[in-house]
Amino acid sequence: MKIDPQSLNQKDRYKLLIGTIIPRPIAWVSTMDEDGNLNLAPYSFFTIGATEPLTLIFCPQLRTDSLEKKDTLRNIEMNREFVINLTDENTAEAMNRTATVLPWGQSEFEWAGVTPEASDTISVPRVREAPAAFECILEQIVTIGDSPGGGAAVFGEVKKIHLRDDIYQDGYVLIEQLKPIGRLAGTGYTRVTDLFDMRRLPPPSEK
Amino acid sequence: MKIDPQSLNQKDRYKLLIGTIIPRPIAWVSTMDEDGNLNLAPYSFFTIGATEPLTLIFCPQLRTDSLEKKDTLRNIEMNREFVINLTDENTAEAMNRTATVLPWGQSEFEWAGVTPEASDTISVPRVREAPAAFECILEQIVTIGDSPGGGAAVFGEVKKIHLRDDIYQDGYVLIEQLKPIGRLAGTGYTRVTDLFDMRRLPPPSEK
Repeated sequence: MKIDPQSLNQKDRYKLLIGTIIPRPIAWVSTMDEDGNLNLAPYSFFTIGATEPLTLIFCPQLRTDSLEKKDTLRNIEMNREFVINLTDENTAEAMNRTATVLPWGQSEFEWAGVTPEASDTISVPRVREAPAAFECILEQIVTIGDSPGGGAAVFGEVKKIHLRDDIYQDGYVLIEQLKPIGRLAGTGYTRVTDLFDMRRLPPPSEK
Repeated sequence: MKIDPQSLNQKDRYKLLIGTIIPRPIAWVSTMDEDGNLNLAPYSFFTIGATEPLTLIFCPQLRTDSLEKKDTLRNIEMNREFVINLTDENTAEAMNRTATVLPWGQSEFEWAGVTPEASDTISVPRVREAPAAFECILEQIVTIGDSPGGGAAVFGEVKKIHLRDDIYQDGYVLIEQLKPIGRLAGTGYTRVTDLFDMRRLPPPSEK
């Protein structure tokens, strides 16, 4: 079937995207406001940008109710610092708790039962329980639209990487130890357990 | 363990990223050069940007050997058109074949055994066998570095969506029909079959 994006309302367009572009890795982003209040929230519009400079990109959307920027983005615009923590099967439930919009001033760390751990290069703490965390300095923000459904792409340069000792060995990440999860549509998540391998083929002329 | 990104060489930094930021959805990008030659290649640095305007982002990296831009990016810079096709269990092998760098002028469509199908809004064809495809017009390219490990973020605005009829019903994407796959490190992929659900909690004040 063929669908003109403009023929769908914003909610149906969103549902179509989050249902087809799967599975998505999750950026569990910690930030801090000007009063030192901590924020922690999951974002699955998230990708690797490049390895030199080591760049991660995540795309927070505008609030659909008020069209305001989410606290995560406001905090990053203010002090240019954030941590992208990763989640796993063990932290899934805590991560999900941080998707709840809390009353102003209440910390998602406390609500989710996770521990702020001081970062090395920035003032924003990471999540101690996360299997991996990337301390980031804002490189740039690219605004994408300003109406309902609009968002932004936040480019962060990674200044320090934290890995739980057991997930990294001889330069390789051990997926059996990491136990990652991926984001699907709605309330859906996937474990990463049904694995297969495909080797890249040599070009035909080298056969 | 703590790792200073600058203490790793570019290859180890890349391996760390592709091993931890998982599972990743795959953009199977078709483009066309000025002579009408078709290109088709998979990119797993890929995310949703926003729903209004409907924006997808993928991040092709510079060639590590020559520091040249990949054909996909050169073609997009030239004519501003591309299709992001999605892959599934059925097209996984064909998609993997298109990761091979072919001699100049040879089409990955033919090499992979997939069929170029005319698009509706752009001159670049989509992959007929793909379960979903997004016709895109280039919105902007953000360059990320110019040394080995550098890349770019390509923002595309979706002008038309194609879905295989059986994967979309009453506004929802049916994952059992879609049979998506996710990218991991190295030769690794995952099926999306080990599912679980988590409902978003109401804020504590509403309890």
